[in-house]
Amino acid sequence: MNEHNHIVRSYDREQATLLDELIRMGQMAVAQLEAALEVVDRRDSSAAERIVANDEAIDALERQINHDVIHLIRRGPLASDLRIILAALRVASDIERIGDYAANIAKRSLALNLAPPLPHTRGLAALGKLAVQQVREVLEAYRNRDEQAALRVRQRDAELDTLYTGLFRELLTYMMEDPRAITPCTHLLFMAKNLERIGDHATNIAENIWFLLHGEAPLPEREKRDDSNTAAP
Amino acid sequence: MNEHNHIVRSYDREQATLLDELIRMGQMAVAQLEAALEVVDRRDSSAAERIVANDEAIDALERQINHDVIHLIRRGPLASDLRIILAALRVASDIERIGDYAANIAKRSLALNLAPPLPHTRGLAALGKLAVQQVREVLEAYRNRDEQAALRVRQRDAELDTLYTGLFRELLTYMMEDPRAITPCTHLLFMAKNLERIGDHATNIAENIWFLLHGEAPLPEREKRDDSNTAAP
Repeated sequence: MNEHNHIVRSYDREQATLLDELIRMGQMAVAQLEAALEVVDRRDSSAAERIVANDEAIDALERQINHDVIHLIRRGPLASDLRIILAALRVASDIERIGDYAANIAKRSLALNLAPPLPHTRGLAALGKLAVQQVREVLEAYRNRDEQAALRVRQRDAELDTLYTGLFRELLTYMMEDPRAITPCTHLLFMAKNLERIGDHATNIAENIWFLLHGEAPLPEREKRDDSNTAAP
Repeated sequence: MNEHNHIVRSYDREQATLLDELIRMGQMAVAQLEAALEVVDRRDSSAAERIVANDEAIDALERQINHDVIHLIRRGPLASDLRIILAALRVASDIERIGDYAANIAKRSLALNLAPPLPHTRGLAALGKLAVQQVREVLEAYRNRDEQAALRVRQRDAELDTLYTGLFRELLTYMMEDPRAITPCTHLLFMAKNLERIGDHATNIAENIWFLLHGEAPLPEREKRDDSNTAAP
């Protein structure tokens, strides 16, 4: 094997390692999110505390990815590889935020557990289920560089926004009916907001899949999403 | 002038253009944030709508910066220049988020203006003033590559968190006293949260100033910030 081939092969290997790290980071974030939604339901404060502590592992993986990206860019990638590398950098940042929001849901559940159980966590569970599905599918689309799957995730974000807006209004009603529900329902409002934001990050990842495949070409039009005052960001 | 010098000079010029764009983007975000806080105070719905519409100009500038970054990286920068370029990419993303939060504050003020004036916007104004100061100072630190100023901004984020937590509790109290205040106070809660998040983005920019000067060397220890359940993210 000549010198040139050797360099090319080691470059490909480094790029493959980067993608492996990203997939692992994504799996950790999905696991954290599912665990967070489960501890809300089970009112399990000690599990919630473990989730909060686990977030550091995702952050550490993002630091590793940033380090690897710098190393890869220094080797002077081809234009198409550069797109892959820059997309990886942004996707890592979105996954890191998803992990943060998951940890914050776990943390707020600690506050919920200080009050008697609320009947209002069902709506949150439904929103959470859709958010998990969006993150799972966009990571799968990223792994397979599947443009159509990415565009479906991006399109489905409007459903999540609609569900969020409905839950938001419902929680406001509970608060008005019973002032004792105000503090716990406020935590639920912010947990719902976190899930809506997780959906936005799944959309960002979908848009980065487009970028890595098509560069700066404009994305196809998206149906206008429900853009009420209670929604983004 | 020989060919080599010519290439170097055009590279420096492109890098200077990138930094000019970032400074401009930062100034736009600060202007949007100040305007948003002012329209909350003045209850000026048509000005609020203009702020929401203006956000697109910040987004467009971020797209331009991303484009320029790719172009600069393709030219194979030196290690130190690569750090400057990658920091620029991340700072642009933080400024874009600050702009989004400012626009969201303006948008929520439209909802506030549907109800009679509340006496509770004073606390928001104080939080907003500190957030503006943080963003202004970190952008100045970025322009001057001033490490000490950046670390001061990062340290001061704890003050913003404390102010936010206080306002959060105060708003909950108002909501419990008067159920009619629940809907507008919820908007105020989210506006306060936006300001707290803007502070986090100012901190991210401060950390990127450190990165562009020192690479991946660890940042100095920070006093532990108030990490109550009502805080981040």
